[in-house]
Amino acid sequence: MAFSPLVDELVESLRCLPGVGQKTAQRMAFHLLEKGRSGGERLAGALAQAMTGVRRCETCQNFSDTPTCGICEDDRRRNGTVCVVESPSDLLAIEQAGDYRGGYFVLMGHLSPIDGVGPEDIGINRLLQRVRAEGVTELILATNPTVEGEATAHYIADRLDSGGADRKILITRLAHGIPVGGELGYVDGFTLTHAFRGRKPLAE
Amino acid sequence: MAFSPLVDELVESLRCLPGVGQKTAQRMAFHLLEKGRSGGERLAGALAQAMTGVRRCETCQNFSDTPTCGICEDDRRRNGTVCVVESPSDLLAIEQAGDYRGGYFVLMGHLSPIDGVGPEDIGINRLLQRVRAEGVTELILATNPTVEGEATAHYIADRLDSGGADRKILITRLAHGIPVGGELGYVDGFTLTHAFRGRKPLAE
Repeated sequence: MAFSPLVDELVESLRCLPGVGQKTAQRMAFHLLEKGRSGGERLAGALAQAMTGVRRCETCQNFSDTPTCGICEDDRRRNGTVCVVESPSDLLAIEQAGDYRGGYFVLMGHLSPIDGVGPEDIGINRLLQRVRAEGVTELILATNPTVEGEATAHYIADRLDSGGADRKILITRLAHGIPVGGELGYVDGFTLTHAFRGRKPLAE
Repeated sequence: MAFSPLVDELVESLRCLPGVGQKTAQRMAFHLLEKGRSGGERLAGALAQAMTGVRRCETCQNFSDTPTCGICEDDRRRNGTVCVVESPSDLLAIEQAGDYRGGYFVLMGHLSPIDGVGPEDIGINRLLQRVRAEGVTELILATNPTVEGEATAHYIADRLDSGGADRKILITRLAHGIPVGGELGYVDGFTLTHAFRGRKPLAE
């Protein structure tokens, strides 16, 4: 390469970011060196701190600076409802919608035997323990509507039914249907079928 | 935001990268925290070092760790030919082609009066001084074939003609024509016109 070792190392390091190849990494490095040195220094500091300081919440497995995350520490949110999601970005989407006010459990993945991901790897035992210990009354399985997400949801429901919990717990799944503001003509057949089967009286 | 201050700061800092918005920054942060901690730590180090350690070469203005860059220090490349490019990535593209073995001068931009970029900002005086001091015999103006790039090339040529240099210097511009491996049907009209005007006898 024609450049200095420091620039080469910067380009090579930027490739650890998802979706960033050689050309993009080069463009990013040149941009930072040319116009964004202060931003680059801030990013260096934020990265160093986050890579060592961010751990997993002991209760919900989400990323957190402290042993227990802000949501799990909030007493008002310990209302007997736990929402199970696959990833922190799913949690963020639900938080941004702003309506749900219960607790979470972040699997950080889904069951995938082909990739060697079993129940222990996504903390399902820990989830079942928490359901028992906290006296959870409703478990919302908000895994993605993909094959793996559905399989994970069914696995968790089965474990709860077969003695995973001592009491009767309401297990729910998010509704499928037409997106708000969507047009019928652009909605796929599966979604439309779900929307028809889940139709409700107008008064509700 | 629902996340910890460290994660929030990481997401915010990642947005200094070109083409990275809120969603992409989030995806990058979660990816690094989940699967790429070692890569993230390496990137933090590389960024910190590059942001403070990388300067401009005193001879060609390119990025360099040392006062003079590797190309400018290489005696074999001080052969009286200097190639003027707009950016380090242009230099890299020429180096990767592997044929050109002379020196460079990196403008780090182009003349653009509307953005307040004048000759002094892209180091044209420094270029003219170097042309005089080094006894340059050929100056290749490899600025981009855009309006600003052409204007910059003409400005440099004018300054050299009007006494910017003491001797007669050959000033050249890269050839326009059909890209190698390209198909005539997909080449635009301007390029085809250039290719026709620049046609050469077959023997050459």
